[in-house]
Amino acid sequence: MTTATRPNYREDVAGRANVEDTPELLAYYDELASMNTAALWTVANKIEPWQPQSSSVPVVWRFQDLREHVLRSIDLVSPEKAGRRVVYLDNPGRRDVSAAVGWLYSGLQAMRPGERASAHAHAASALRFIMEGSGAYTIVDGHRMTLGANDFVLTPNGCWHEHGVSEDGAPCIWQDGLDIPLVNALEANFYSVHPDLQQADTAPVDYAVAAWGGRGLVPANDNWQHAYSPLLKYEWAPTYEALSNFARVTDGSPFDGVLMDYINPKTGGPVMQTIGASMQMLRPGEHTKAHRQVGSFIYQCAKGKGYSIINGQRLDWQERDIFCVPSWMFHEHVNLSASEDACLFCFHDLPVMKSLGLYREEALKDNGGHQPIVQP
Amino acid sequence: MTTATRPNYREDVAGRANVEDTPELLAYYDELASMNTAALWTVANKIEPWQPQSSSVPVVWRFQDLREHVLRSIDLVSPEKAGRRVVYLDNPGRRDVSAAVGWLYSGLQAMRPGERASAHAHAASALRFIMEGSGAYTIVDGHRMTLGANDFVLTPNGCWHEHGVSEDGAPCIWQDGLDIPLVNALEANFYSVHPDLQQADTAPVDYAVAAWGGRGLVPANDNWQHAYSPLLKYEWAPTYEALSNFARVTDGSPFDGVLMDYINPKTGGPVMQTIGASMQMLRPGEHTKAHRQVGSFIYQCAKGKGYSIINGQRLDWQERDIFCVPSWMFHEHVNLSASEDACLFCFHDLPVMKSLGLYREEALKDNGGHQPIVQP
Amino acid sequence: MTTATRPNYREDVAGRANVEDTPELLAYYDELASMNTAALWTVANKIEPWQPQSSSVPVVWRFQDLREHVLRSIDLVSPEKAGRRVVYLDNPGRRDVSAAVGWLYSGLQAMRPGERASAHAHAASALRFIMEGSGAYTIVDGHRMTLGANDFVLTPNGCWHEHGVSEDGAPCIWQDGLDIPLVNALEANFYSVHPDLQQADTAPVDYAVAAWGGRGLVPANDNWQHAYSPLLKYEWAPTYEALSNFARVTDGSPFDGVLMDYINPKTGGPVMQTIGASMQMLRPGEHTKAHRQVGSFIYQCAKGKGYSIINGQRLDWQERDIFCVPSWMFHEHVNLSASEDACLFCFHDLPVMKSLGLYREEALKDNGGHQPIVQP
Amino acid sequence: MTTATRPNYREDVAGRANVEDTPELLAYYDELASMNTAALWTVANKIEPWQPQSSSVPVVWRFQDLREHVLRSIDLVSPEKAGRRVVYLDNPGRRDVSAAVGWLYSGLQAMRPGERASAHAHAASALRFIMEGSGAYTIVDGHRMTLGANDFVLTPNGCWHEHGVSEDGAPCIWQDGLDIPLVNALEANFYSVHPDLQQADTAPVDYAVAAWGGRGLVPANDNWQHAYSPLLKYEWAPTYEALSNFARVTDGSPFDGVLMDYINPKTGGPVMQTIGASMQMLRPGEHTKAHRQVGSFIYQCAKGKGYSIINGQRLDWQERDIFCVPSWMFHEHVNLSASEDACLFCFHDLPVMKSLGLYREEALKDNGGHQPIVQP
Repeated sequence: MTTATRPNYREDVAGRANVEDTPELLAYYDELASMNTAALWTVANKIEPWQPQSSSVPVVWRFQDLREHVLRSIDLVSPEKAGRRVVYLDNPGRRDVSAAVGWLYSGLQAMRPGERASAHAHAASALRFIMEGSGAYTIVDGHRMTLGANDFVLTPNGCWHEHGVSEDGAPCIWQDGLDIPLVNALEANFYSVHPDLQQADTAPVDYAVAAWGGRGLVPANDNWQHAYSPLLKYEWAPTYEALSNFARVTDGSPFDGVLMDYINPKTGGPVMQTIGASMQMLRPGEHTKAHRQVGSFIYQCAKGKGYSIINGQRLDWQERDIFCVPSWMFHEHVNLSASEDACLFCFHDLPVMKSLGLYREEALKDNGGHQPIVQP
Repeated sequence: MTTATRPNYREDVAGRANVEDTPELLAYYDELASMNTAALWTVANKIEPWQPQSSSVPVVWRFQDLREHVLRSIDLVSPEKAGRRVVYLDNPGRRDVSAAVGWLYSGLQAMRPGERASAHAHAASALRFIMEGSGAYTIVDGHRMTLGANDFVLTPNGCWHEHGVSEDGAPCIWQDGLDIPLVNALEANFYSVHPDLQQADTAPVDYAVAAWGGRGLVPANDNWQHAYSPLLKYEWAPTYEALSNFARVTDGSPFDGVLMDYINPKTGGPVMQTIGASMQMLRPGEHTKAHRQVGSFIYQCAKGKGYSIINGQRLDWQERDIFCVPSWMFHEHVNLSASEDACLFCFHDLPVMKSLGLYREEALKDNGGHQPIVQP
Repeated sequence: MTTATRPNYREDVAGRANVEDTPELLAYYDELASMNTAALWTVANKIEPWQPQSSSVPVVWRFQDLREHVLRSIDLVSPEKAGRRVVYLDNPGRRDVSAAVGWLYSGLQAMRPGERASAHAHAASALRFIMEGSGAYTIVDGHRMTLGANDFVLTPNGCWHEHGVSEDGAPCIWQDGLDIPLVNALEANFYSVHPDLQQADTAPVDYAVAAWGGRGLVPANDNWQHAYSPLLKYEWAPTYEALSNFARVTDGSPFDGVLMDYINPKTGGPVMQTIGASMQMLRPGEHTKAHRQVGSFIYQCAKGKGYSIINGQRLDWQERDIFCVPSWMFHEHVNLSASEDACLFCFHDLPVMKSLGLYREEALKDNGGHQPIVQP
Repeated sequence: MTTATRPNYREDVAGRANVEDTPELLAYYDELASMNTAALWTVANKIEPWQPQSSSVPVVWRFQDLREHVLRSIDLVSPEKAGRRVVYLDNPGRRDVSAAVGWLYSGLQAMRPGERASAHAHAASALRFIMEGSGAYTIVDGHRMTLGANDFVLTPNGCWHEHGVSEDGAPCIWQDGLDIPLVNALEANFYSVHPDLQQADTAPVDYAVAAWGGRGLVPANDNWQHAYSPLLKYEWAPTYEALSNFARVTDGSPFDGVLMDYINPKTGGPVMQTIGASMQMLRPGEHTKAHRQVGSFIYQCAKGKGYSIINGQRLDWQERDIFCVPSWMFHEHVNLSASEDACLFCFHDLPVMKSLGLYREEALKDNGGHQPIVQP
């Protein structure tokens, strides 16, 4: 960097850097640069911001726009050549890292009946949320799981996994969610292709739900050693039942309505170490208050229609639409139906923020907790 | 203690005490006794046994024998005078501490429709398992729970709790399980009567199950601070469903068939810090192998009929019968039906043994893992 | 039990049992007894006390009285016959379980130079605190540790261990502390004699302190898997230094002066799962306030002189004297010197109480926090 | 991005993406881009690398080169204008985030006697390691700590902190280490200037070491609630003593010689949630074997001289030199003295990798575990 173009982040506030450029200083900076060093005060105000300023922008991806393109990918490229046919969500502020928001990746994957992707493993953690079709299945470390709409399945860090659609199924579309950008950024990602390209089944189909899906009961004497949930698959029917039951007895969160977290039954904690997931119900006509949180969120509308206001922008959504909330942006949600509930599936990186002691949240105090909508 | 009657526990084994009594030693022992001391070698072999020798004996309490006596207690004493009408299980080896086995108390409690016991709290932890009747309820810290047969409810350490039967119910009998003997032995028990004698409801009926009974989902942002399970009530229908599901995919334990633990969904651990509970299914004709464990167990047959062999004694049981397994006694279970499964509810003190690092278990190696039956 | 001698624990308090004996009831009780059952209301008030009533009594064991008897044991019995020459502390309220207080055992062991006890292991946890002599050592799982006055060493649950005094040493006396009564009561004790009777050294002498005795540093990449402290030995010099340093910066506890806990550096928790230990300094002239705690305590005066008031009884102590505080008895401590500090070593069962959720404590509110002394 | 410049990351390996660009596909990609989406197979091989490829490069910063420039900063800018006079280490591969390696920041800060920086707080975690001078102190949440050469002090996430040099001191230089780049990347950083610009002392000087610096003892009944170490300051003398003691009894690690971790005495874990620290001793003539780890490391030579080989590059260092090891690069260390030990202080982000389940390590198998040196 030459001194001519050197930025300076001065602030005229006590305790902040406020050093004017002088010829002497500019020469000094050049000397420092020659030794792989620099002067902190030239960047201090930039690298110590008053509060997070996300580089991501709020986006809604509408399924009616994307569906055709996603299905077209099946015709355009073969599974052998493409590996997976996925249209991924590319946040305008995060194109350099292929993220949908923050350090989270998401994409829509399509597959024809009878297709089966090759088995692989990576240090990144993944989940998929089924959007349409029938006959989908995922195999995780030899455990095959059948999947229907709004089911949610884990393929955690280090597991061999592969996806497929049975011969008698219908073309499937699902949402993938991964922490690939985070794990890459942390310079911690590894990738392996399964030596046989496909796994053998080593347990009865849907073992995980049969063993770990009890209501308040788990297998005794099990020797589960992994840091992720042995339940692996979370089906829609019991999820909606849980939300409905909880809705009967709770006032809900002012910010999120009836919000429940998917958990690891071995620990009561999040489903994976780096990605958490939740499902929430907005009751008919519900308009929540705004708050902001350290962490990035990707939502899919699993039922109903409404809109969210994120940093003053109104993003309308209906079933299958996906939208994101960047870190530390105020957000509030609205169910536009006066008679039907709306359900939002969400995955996020709160487990990262909480493990590292970085989580904070704050309610919007002004205007009754509601944001004015900014015209774009 | 005079020297005349002083016992001596000599063993002729290297590393064990083997000191003969002499007049000089007996005089020395008397001197020590005068100073509130004694010689270790006179008791070392007694207080350092090679392995546990439980003072409890295996017992089966047959419901057909007890039922009439339990119901008669309602006529004999009033709730005002008796507090609770309970026939408790009094192990012949543990009468001094009113225990059913080891340090666990258990009793059968009866109540008429319209009755309601006074609210109280204690440092002991308790559970109740419903055996017959209708309209039973328990209130724990203002949370009212309705109860049916084979439902299991917690009233943990320190909670205000009370039991009742609704006006439109039928006379109820249930099994109480507590760690009263343990908490008394640890000189840690406290008892309080609720200042109003009865609690007000402070939450919707059956809040706990509606909020915490989801399959892999829990309320987000809850602030549960207690060391016991917020689920509080574990109903029979989902319990039996969980066992049936697990049975489809597992070979089961060689010692216990299809065994599942009731858990605290906040932690994945036991329901309370001092008492764990499980339900197990013995498949038609199943005869498990024998093992022994450090810990005391109280079983109730919730379904079916069979027998258990405990330290060589055959104890037959059918629905509603209760039996105990003392610490470190070999035990194996048999389902006598060739067509129906049998289910055993169990509560035990394994959480104590595991928290204190004392748990051990051992399979019976001889005779194909089966005990010869000792004729009484 | 015949009806003639049946006790009855009536209390005339709402919510408590208060049933008079009648011929009909007494006959009913006999019927119940014939089925290994009994009526709860006959014992409810006994087994649900308002608060703990320890069966132990406060005792001080004065070293000047005991020393001669302890040393005499070496002459009276051989190590081969006695195993260990120990005079144990026998609380008048706990003679049935050979406990010094509550469920804790303690004894004074003596050994001559050149002697070495046989190696053994048990499920009970143990510690020893050196009182006098030189050349003492303990070997724990092949790790030999040298010991001097006021050093404290662990021989935890399941470890092979043996004690000895080197040929060039002087006769040694130390205090043993164990949870033998607790582990026996829990029917969880096991005992093994080492197959070779003596262990070989498998690590450099005093490895544990060299590796784990750093100030805020521990070995990296160690694979310690046990639930007890890898430090094993806690020496007097750094202990007294730690107390002196802490005393410079703290006001101390109103109940305990300058109180520090020995910890497991792997966890920050107690040294073993069932026994905790502490050392406290009473500053010159300090007279603490009274409180009571759930848990049993055994103290040895390591330095200085003073007295403690326990449940109204004054027990005077000086260096090497031992005294006990039973559960839920008020206690306060006094340093009788106006110029010298006094130090009390203590071991206790608080880890048990805390692991099981049973710990409570309460300050004495009356009389400025001080107990009136009861004349014996 | 126009199709003209679109990169393509094809690999001709089964299970990897290998799709040639065609006019139809390029048109499809443009359509996707218009909807904030893209095709995964165009970037899959890039974002799912076979193993980490760090963007950082190995660098050594030699103190003899930097010292003059660091001291000159004191003359060039005032503390009022600059906040802090720091020359930071700017890895050529990480200039965009001002990191020394990976997501770790480090700088050399200088201060004159009598100066005192303004107090502030941030969500980033920080440490400082004293290099030269006298009279340095740091105040953390009202706790003043005095600092000498090779002392290491924490100013964790969320704490008010400020640095100064006493009037009677000598000009000081120290190394700062922070996770600013990580916390910024996670969009989780907050910054506050203390309302009074300077903190009042609220505890005796050096309270933390006096209270928490015991050898195996900690204050009883403390109510420390933070996730970072209450010890805060780790002094050189006991650190070197710990290394020397450990060196007497260990063979050491083949990769790191005598390596000890600084710990939080409340947990036995790392000193902060996002930054760990260690000190290691390389014995005279020691040449360790190479391994690689997921995680980034910054070393300062605290004593002695030698060199490290990082990814085949030899970097020579002596006392006060700083060097870095990027993630997943092989590294081995050499002590060039045949008679003196060498000590390396290190801080790193292993707590992040381990909390998130991303840590891996691998020994170099070839060539006896030693890397051939690549000529630059």
